[in-house]
Amino acid sequence: MSTLPRPQNPETDPRVKAVFDDIKATRGNDFINNLWHYLAFDPTLLETIWRDVKSVMATPSSLDPMTKELIYAAVSIANSCEYCIHSHTAAAKAKGMTEEQYAEFLSIVSLAGRTNHLLNGIKVPVDQEFDHS
Amino acid sequence: MSTLPRPQNPETDPRVKAVFDDIKATRGNDFINNLWHYLAFDPTLLETIWRDVKSVMATPSSLDPMTKELIYAAVSIANSCEYCIHSHTAAAKAKGMTEEQYAEFLSIVSLAGRTNHLLNGIKVPVDQEFDHS
Amino acid sequence: MSTLPRPQNPETDPRVKAVFDDIKATRGNDFINNLWHYLAFDPTLLETIWRDVKSVMATPSSLDPMTKELIYAAVSIANSCEYCIHSHTAAAKAKGMTEEQYAEFLSIVSLAGRTNHLLNGIKVPVDQEFDHS
Amino acid sequence: MSTLPRPQNPETDPRVKAVFDDIKATRGNDFINNLWHYLAFDPTLLETIWRDVKSVMATPSSLDPMTKELIYAAVSIANSCEYCIHSHTAAAKAKGMTEEQYAEFLSIVSLAGRTNHLLNGIKVPVDQEFDHS
Amino acid sequence: MSTLPRPQNPETDPRVKAVFDDIKATRGNDFINNLWHYLAFDPTLLETIWRDVKSVMATPSSLDPMTKELIYAAVSIANSCEYCIHSHTAAAKAKGMTEEQYAEFLSIVSLAGRTNHLLNGIKVPVDQEFDHS
Amino acid sequence: MSTLPRPQNPETDPRVKAVFDDIKATRGNDFINNLWHYLAFDPTLLETIWRDVKSVMATPSSLDPMTKELIYAAVSIANSCEYCIHSHTAAAKAKGMTEEQYAEFLSIVSLAGRTNHLLNGIKVPVDQEFDHS
Repeated sequence: MSTLPRPQNPETDPRVKAVFDDIKATRGNDFINNLWHYLAFDPTLLETIWRDVKSVMATPSSLDPMTKELIYAAVSIANSCEYCIHSHTAAAKAKGMTEEQYAEFLSIVSLAGRTNHLLNGIKVPVDQEFDHS
Repeated sequence: MSTLPRPQNPETDPRVKAVFDDIKATRGNDFINNLWHYLAFDPTLLETIWRDVKSVMATPSSLDPMTKELIYAAVSIANSCEYCIHSHTAAAKAKGMTEEQYAEFLSIVSLAGRTNHLLNGIKVPVDQEFDHS
Repeated sequence: MSTLPRPQNPETDPRVKAVFDDIKATRGNDFINNLWHYLAFDPTLLETIWRDVKSVMATPSSLDPMTKELIYAAVSIANSCEYCIHSHTAAAKAKGMTEEQYAEFLSIVSLAGRTNHLLNGIKVPVDQEFDHS
Repeated sequence: MSTLPRPQNPETDPRVKAVFDDIKATRGNDFINNLWHYLAFDPTLLETIWRDVKSVMATPSSLDPMTKELIYAAVSIANSCEYCIHSHTAAAKAKGMTEEQYAEFLSIVSLAGRTNHLLNGIKVPVDQEFDHS
Repeated sequence: MSTLPRPQNPETDPRVKAVFDDIKATRGNDFINNLWHYLAFDPTLLETIWRDVKSVMATPSSLDPMTKELIYAAVSIANSCEYCIHSHTAAAKAKGMTEEQYAEFLSIVSLAGRTNHLLNGIKVPVDQEFDHS
Repeated sequence: MSTLPRPQNPETDPRVKAVFDDIKATRGNDFINNLWHYLAFDPTLLETIWRDVKSVMATPSSLDPMTKELIYAAVSIANSCEYCIHSHTAAAKAKGMTEEQYAEFLSIVSLAGRTNHLLNGIKVPVDQEFDHS
């Protein structure tokens, strides 16, 4: 159940069509996942979010594409966002993540969950040696 | 303020000394950060957490060391664990993260925060195309 | 799947009936949503939560009814509470939220998600100018 | 302690100066809060975040300015972002929030925290009546 | 830094004095911790929160007092509420928690953090055997 | 939908079989819940997580078994982990939790949710009286 209906034929709005066309061109295929269909209810929101995702995730940069998806998926797990977990885990696979790397990714994420709770429980003071400010 | 006092001379306990020695040997220096000092109040907990951290983070594996620290730091930011944010950001720097990569890391983490909230707000249904189960 | 069965005919308990009657009278209709049916397994808990919701949300006050629902929904999104997201988004619509306002609400909530992660990542010190204590 | 040093004289970079000038012009005063100083370490990130904040928060729209700050602050509390809590509570006050409204805001946010945990604990099924999809 | 000043002499308001007197009588000592001082800025909020805390935490019930504090502290750690972590860890100690029990509590909380992240990452389907609805 | 397929006949791997046998022996029955089936995709991860769960949760210790499950469930609710909420609520019931105790548990968890948000909103300073460091 969603809070919004999935818009029917959103591409009749030229602003939506322009974004959908750019998603297809950027990704090199015709698949438009649900996120973009739902955001089409408000073309401004659709344009804003796509501009961000394209700029941060779909542009060659100093981190490799798989690493970027793993960072994205890690945050999504901690925030319990089901859609984002699925989409970014799938994207990491598409960008080369092996099963061994996925197992290791899960080990790191869950170990972080463990020590985050442990340190937040004790409130250990931060070492001055970590200070770069 | 912590919930526990920082143990004085914890290395007089041979179990604590063994862990501290292994931390120093594994990392190749003599610095023992506060986390391990505080955990020394319970040698079993100290041994358990160090065993995990050593096994997951300090052993060569299918993901490179800097990527592992970035995943760890990403979860820690989402969980608002101040100590872990500082220690793993510092570790990523020590393992080669440039300022440009750090800016990009922050861009990804904060974009994930944005879309996590957006998708959780709308409850967009997960695409069948993402299903690998 | 719930951790509790949905009580059958909970209104045979007079304490439950009194709460259900008050919900109907306060809201001006006969719909009792699932939350109250499930809480009926423990009349004390039911009475406590309804007293709070009535007092905070259903009493004229210094914030208008739609704004109150938006604040409630914002917290629920950040906490990933699916039921609360749906019930308070529906309530905001019932209290006049337009589609344009909903798009704007989602923009604010998701931007907050973005900067919350960014600021928690950098740990920017709070400006003295914000201090009112 | 921050993960980055506060840049010295960031306005010597013309891209930073352009953002700082726009912040001052948009807000009608000369105060640049710490967030923008720290983000100046990466002009692209600075420009992106300011463009978002200006577009969402500093442009007349379908929700009034104080309501927008309350929604922002509500998310920030749930995400435990100390900087954002202070900056957006201060902004709500600057935009007219009375002490009575602040007490009511805190009542709603904390009641949402209560029912979010209660509903997430029981996993009450969402009523079909809330479905607008 | 707080968002509110600490009220001076709040007991000159008879509603505040009545709550403070009841806190002292219920706890059997004269210490009023900061939470109640700050809440005194709004007597209604003060009365509501104290009524809840007294009813849930300070009344003999089916769970023993130390267990109740441990449950409270566990939630507070997961929500990263520094004040609540300190106050409820201190309360658990006051109600008999030994150092061994505290170490065990931290082990459980941090293990839950680990498996919460692991299960949320994989999205393992819930077993029908756990269904009591 | 899961991010992984449920492994078919994982017990053909002797490392998996050893863990499954130990789970059955430790719990005294033949039920292997889904968590362990899914983790079998990576025997090292399976062994690590089972070793932790057995050591922390299935070994007689200074806290009684039901209390341990309640602490685990409390964290899981705050982290919105649906699987863990169901499995540890079911485990608490299996270890003797009455309906009255469950209602009380939910009252504590949700009250903690309330005051966590309230205190994080105001940023009340921690009393020196709580300091044990």
